[in-house]
Amino acid sequence: MTTAEGHPGEGRPLGEHELDRLDAYWRAANYLSVGQIYLMDNPLLTEPLRPEHVKPRLLGHWGTTPGLTFVLAHLNRVIAERDLSVLSVLGPGHGGPAALATAWLDRTYGEVYPEAGRDAEGMRALFRRFSFPGGAPSHVAPETPGSIHEGGELGYSLAHAYGAAFDNPDLVVACVVGDGEAETGPLAASWHSTKFLDPARDGAVLPILHLNGYKIANPAVLARIGDRELRALLEGYGHRVHLVSGDEPSAMHRAMAAELDLALDEIAAIQHAARSGTLTDRPQWPVIVLRSPKGWTGPKVVDGVPVEGTWRSHQVPLSGVREDPERLAQLEAWLRSYRPEELFDAHGHPTELIDELVPEGERRLSATPYANGGLLRADLRLPDFREFAVDVPAPGATTAEATRVLGRWLREVVRANPHTFRLFGPDETASNRLDAVLEATDRAWMAGRLPTDEHLGRAGRVMEVLSEHLCQGWLEGYLLTGRHGLFSCYEAFIHIVDSMFNQHAKWLKVSRALPWRRPISSLNYLLTSHVWRQDHNGFSHQDPGFLDHVVNKKAEVVRVYLPPDANTLLSVVDHCLRSRDYVNVVVAGKQPAPNWLSMPEAIAHCTRGVGLFEWASTDSGHEPDVVLACAGDVPTLETLAATKILRAELPELAVRVVNVVDLMRLQPPSEHPHGMPDSEFDALFTPDRPIVFAFHGYPWLIHRLAYRRRGHANLHVRGYIEEGTTTTPFDMVMLNNLDRFHLVMDVIDRVPGLAVRAAHLRQRMADERLRCRAHTREFGEDPAHITGWSWDGGGRPGHEP
Amino acid sequence: MTTAEGHPGEGRPLGEHELDRLDAYWRAANYLSVGQIYLMDNPLLTEPLRPEHVKPRLLGHWGTTPGLTFVLAHLNRVIAERDLSVLSVLGPGHGGPAALATAWLDRTYGEVYPEAGRDAEGMRALFRRFSFPGGAPSHVAPETPGSIHEGGELGYSLAHAYGAAFDNPDLVVACVVGDGEAETGPLAASWHSTKFLDPARDGAVLPILHLNGYKIANPAVLARIGDRELRALLEGYGHRVHLVSGDEPSAMHRAMAAELDLALDEIAAIQHAARSGTLTDRPQWPVIVLRSPKGWTGPKVVDGVPVEGTWRSHQVPLSGVREDPERLAQLEAWLRSYRPEELFDAHGHPTELIDELVPEGERRLSATPYANGGLLRADLRLPDFREFAVDVPAPGATTAEATRVLGRWLREVVRANPHTFRLFGPDETASNRLDAVLEATDRAWMAGRLPTDEHLGRAGRVMEVLSEHLCQGWLEGYLLTGRHGLFSCYEAFIHIVDSMFNQHAKWLKVSRALPWRRPISSLNYLLTSHVWRQDHNGFSHQDPGFLDHVVNKKAEVVRVYLPPDANTLLSVVDHCLRSRDYVNVVVAGKQPAPNWLSMPEAIAHCTRGVGLFEWASTDSGHEPDVVLACAGDVPTLETLAATKILRAELPELAVRVVNVVDLMRLQPPSEHPHGMPDSEFDALFTPDRPIVFAFHGYPWLIHRLAYRRRGHANLHVRGYIEEGTTTTPFDMVMLNNLDRFHLVMDVIDRVPGLAVRAAHLRQRMADERLRCRAHTREFGEDPAHITGWSWDGGGRPGHEP
Repeated sequence: MTTAEGHPGEGRPLGEHELDRLDAYWRAANYLSVGQIYLMDNPLLTEPLRPEHVKPRLLGHWGTTPGLTFVLAHLNRVIAERDLSVLSVLGPGHGGPAALATAWLDRTYGEVYPEAGRDAEGMRALFRRFSFPGGAPSHVAPETPGSIHEGGELGYSLAHAYGAAFDNPDLVVACVVGDGEAETGPLAASWHSTKFLDPARDGAVLPILHLNGYKIANPAVLARIGDRELRALLEGYGHRVHLVSGDEPSAMHRAMAAELDLALDEIAAIQHAARSGTLTDRPQWPVIVLRSPKGWTGPKVVDGVPVEGTWRSHQVPLSGVREDPERLAQLEAWLRSYRPEELFDAHGHPTELIDELVPEGERRLSATPYANGGLLRADLRLPDFREFAVDVPAPGATTAEATRVLGRWLREVVRANPHTFRLFGPDETASNRLDAVLEATDRAWMAGRLPTDEHLGRAGRVMEVLSEHLCQGWLEGYLLTGRHGLFSCYEAFIHIVDSMFNQHAKWLKVSRALPWRRPISSLNYLLTSHVWRQDHNGFSHQDPGFLDHVVNKKAEVVRVYLPPDANTLLSVVDHCLRSRDYVNVVVAGKQPAPNWLSMPEAIAHCTRGVGLFEWASTDSGHEPDVVLACAGDVPTLETLAATKILRAELPELAVRVVNVVDLMRLQPPSEHPHGMPDSEFDALFTPDRPIVFAFHGYPWLIHRLAYRRRGHANLHVRGYIEEGTTTTPFDMVMLNNLDRFHLVMDVIDRVPGLAVRAAHLRQRMADERLRCRAHTREFGEDPAHITGWSWDGGGRPGHEP
Repeated sequence: MTTAEGHPGEGRPLGEHELDRLDAYWRAANYLSVGQIYLMDNPLLTEPLRPEHVKPRLLGHWGTTPGLTFVLAHLNRVIAERDLSVLSVLGPGHGGPAALATAWLDRTYGEVYPEAGRDAEGMRALFRRFSFPGGAPSHVAPETPGSIHEGGELGYSLAHAYGAAFDNPDLVVACVVGDGEAETGPLAASWHSTKFLDPARDGAVLPILHLNGYKIANPAVLARIGDRELRALLEGYGHRVHLVSGDEPSAMHRAMAAELDLALDEIAAIQHAARSGTLTDRPQWPVIVLRSPKGWTGPKVVDGVPVEGTWRSHQVPLSGVREDPERLAQLEAWLRSYRPEELFDAHGHPTELIDELVPEGERRLSATPYANGGLLRADLRLPDFREFAVDVPAPGATTAEATRVLGRWLREVVRANPHTFRLFGPDETASNRLDAVLEATDRAWMAGRLPTDEHLGRAGRVMEVLSEHLCQGWLEGYLLTGRHGLFSCYEAFIHIVDSMFNQHAKWLKVSRALPWRRPISSLNYLLTSHVWRQDHNGFSHQDPGFLDHVVNKKAEVVRVYLPPDANTLLSVVDHCLRSRDYVNVVVAGKQPAPNWLSMPEAIAHCTRGVGLFEWASTDSGHEPDVVLACAGDVPTLETLAATKILRAELPELAVRVVNVVDLMRLQPPSEHPHGMPDSEFDALFTPDRPIVFAFHGYPWLIHRLAYRRRGHANLHVRGYIEEGTTTTPFDMVMLNNLDRFHLVMDVIDRVPGLAVRAAHLRQRMADERLRCRAHTREFGEDPAHITGWSWDGGGRPGHEP
């Protein structure tokens, strides 16, 4: 492999000066990358390299870096030449030095971190900061100017790139996909994003598949399937392939420049056709395949074994440099091979040759506002959600499908924000009863259509693909570039993106501490088709554990809401869509269910986050005998049904009903900004009365949140205990002891004195459970007194029944 | 779309009788499927259909079902004709009725559920059980004979299929991939499994991509990209494409039979060449693409809108059947369109024509032992792990890399079990220091090779691909068909398979209650490169939350182990590899670390799961002033370092050191079978002394497990609080207040009287922290007194120091 293959002769040939410039820039970026990995002093090699110039801990990933610097150099060329807005997404984000070298060279690094400007001292600071305690991470990360992408966990680069391109018609997102990352599922699925990108209204994504052949210790699949299969694969994804392959720098520069020009010409032609209305078929978007050696330009051989071009250059190709003079000499020779004296003047300033390649202002790869979306973000125009309220003359007097009500409001949100708001979901918008939005827009769809199809369109604002990974990745990219969105998902399957949530929450946590990163819109999840109403789909669809997962992340970032009915759902989602830099998780049902609160009450309740249902309580504002607490729509229903039984059967019992919307309020204020003080907790839940808490999720989450509270020893939580199957809705709550009858039994078991006094009632409740179970097994449906149940417990809001 | 396309003329043409047989079988399976969804009585339509014959809740997914029955019918033909062992994996597992119809027809259903045998009463039971409380799930599931696959969460069918095929040279796994599922990331990645399947030693996977065009409410991408791109895509995956397309049944039967014969001939040819040593290149395995209408043979039009061939047939195409006589008549007509009188005799027995197609004994799709892997499972031959012990003359006297020690034993496990044990990991076997296994075997690799590659081979037992989804899916398939394995993974990235773990844990929970399902080997995770030693990779690689995720699942299924050193790791993994029907999670470091326990002590400690480190304690067996508890290797190290400081500085303080290996022991026995009684907990941890607990993971997990204990109010837990970056190892523990100095401060803050008496020491500790931090920031490495620290605290095991 000594020459470069491309389309020789096609595209505009590269002039000698342009070649020199590209190569100088590339050498400079490589020099700066090696320097970051190895040096803590003597950055310009103004004196012979000594052990104390070298970092004691050598960290970083060299292998992928020279390929990235190569791509970035070429992107700089076309930005300047074509006056393009380019956002780079570096999938092989382990190659952090490449991005930092770029940022240093284009001055952004010094603007953001003033101690690391473009001179010798700044270069020393750049080197020292890299992978150094208190400094810069070794991967691309929030701290990396120009990046919307964390390079640690592989798989999401291409989805991020598409998310960034949506609704940004003037943007080209150049996305480097590593051959390691290409083996992951999320990345493999992302190629089909071509069917969801509108060439008229969206920007372009130019994937650059970088085949350097190896992962940590293994060859990469796509690097070893041969050009024929690889080409077929990429064409199967809907791409037109541009191959650049080799290792001789000047030939590679020429080939890359030619193919990049061709690719950008193709993009321009596609966009022109689409925007002038002459595009009929789905376009074949270009993809560049770059085959270059792993650890290109690094040490060829170390201790007699080949390093350049093998997996051995994945991390630090030369180790033990401080201890071994021979290695030290090899490092110095490697650094000097880039001829730094041609690249930087005596003060460490990059030479003019290099600066000619660096774009200006916001065109700079590291300074593009697209990579700091908060700069571009504008608040959503939100229609008044109160106008979409359902009428609630009395608690439980009307019913609604909460998500259907929300859908009507979201329809208007879509209408009011035609370029900055999208709805994401795995083929579930209608199933989740948000289909009112389809009155205002379509599902985005660029693939083939049939006459029987409905609500498909190029410019659709609803993004549906049966991949939670894609939904999440697109949405992240969309948010990180300054827009807004909502991801609606079956509750159980949101676990598919647990790790993506992790990475986004970590991104937000770090970003919040960086003054130059502007706040972005929150990542909003609407989890519906939830655990309690997946009775028809069965056990595999029953898992409320995402809440547990979420609360492990930094309290300043995560919010969890469990609105008990339609009006509270409206209020909560309105709040979430206004917020910034959070992850909001909202859990709400889609099945017909009673409305408890009028809109004014809903707003007041959601504002407090937790509060009494006075109209359901019988403690007359005094100390209750027992607190029935609930969080979530189904638990609220069962709690109120239990309350009604208690009211009828044990009228002298003082029951207080507390409903929790904002789960984080249960924590102490020391743990979460929403946490309520102990005094407030005690006032609501009492410090000493039994609390029977009906919870939407796994019961121990409530214990975890409340274990420091005085009344914790009296807290008894019912929730999902991982029992389920295909059955009826009421059988589901019975299977998990969350049903009204069991809650009454729990009260009897816990209120002192009731065990004897209410023994008969307890037995009746147990019998009721058996009867319901038997009925269900016989007839395949819940008994009429369950399905036909209504509150009728009186209680105009704010009044005693 | 009225005829079938295939390779007319190629393959053996189908005789008329064979065609009749196939079609009769297909109609019978369709009839039985519709019956399952709709009927609770009158199964043979011996009387006109009345509302009370119809289920009150209509549940199930019709859309995919007729395609599945079509495939299953054709599989039956080739099984009988070629005497094949076929395992079917149904990716569109929502089509549960198809699998149950097959099981009923091939008699397995009645063998497993005797009330549902092959007569009218049994048919009624089959119908009633389906999606009925107490009955059969609507998807393929553990309860479905013949399935190793849960059909609820989409994405894993093909990975399961490959896992089943590994080391089963005589097996053909026919895997139906739905066009919805094909959009998911894990499925998209799975196609490349062709590069990991050895045609000589493994069986074959025949993917059948079923394009019925729609998901829940949307078209499917692969159904709408046209044949040219689709063919390119599949060829890019390494396949040879066989297309069967149409809707006219007899033409479709002919085409399917022909293409299936061709595909099986190709498989036979590939295997023959590989097994006779004449295969040189990677083979092009066949794939069948089946284009058929969604809801094929179902209602064509309902209320004037098309249903067959559209997404409207996804679930229940006719609703309101009980209430609407017209709908009822339409249902009856639909059922009768299959001409049940030709398919079943008056007693409900399938006719001879159908039985001719049903294979015998273990060849039956529903009775194959490959789908009930416990039947085939043999215990591993495990070399004596004690022979691989590291020498520990005194606690902390030697050091080892725990996973490297384990690797030597695993090498012998591989050698002793050359056909039934594999190691899975995303390119991390060497990185995770298990590379001794590569002395005994290779990494499986069927793609191209270069001279610089190492340890690649067709018959390798190490499965490395940069997809946690594939590792998990392959391993699940391998275990479910009766074999053994271990998945080693970076701790943070195991979250990528959170949802797959969920589904497997649910599978195990359900399977354990089914007497006919035999126990399979446990799913063993080795999580290494863990949160505390990802200082070089930074924040994205720091997440210990999989433990929290795991403990949400049923206690009878999950086990979590945190061995503190090399010998305990050996003992724990030996235990895990012997176990059945669990998910075992083992967390262990790969970095050099002190050895604390000799092998006899390690075995004793692991057997108890939790125990005193008497040699480190200074309570002389009496009541301590404080308990220092720890779980995990790094927390154990920091705890012992804190102990050493306390011993020197506060020699009069009675300190007890408790180490937890088996995390589940912290729970009460009512919550987990490993839970220890309160008496034992109190004896170890005391009911009233301060407990400073240094934990590997998020601290609240310990609270969650122990909140019911008497001493809980005295429990103070340090762990990972989501603080991290690229830094040094000791800085990482300091960032999260888990370091030795902070633990000493915690002791001082919590032991009554010490706050004053040890105020000076507390200040010194705080200063130490500042000094360490400053040193790290200055020099980029931990101070020498940290890196050079050793226990030297005396204490031959079992003796007071």
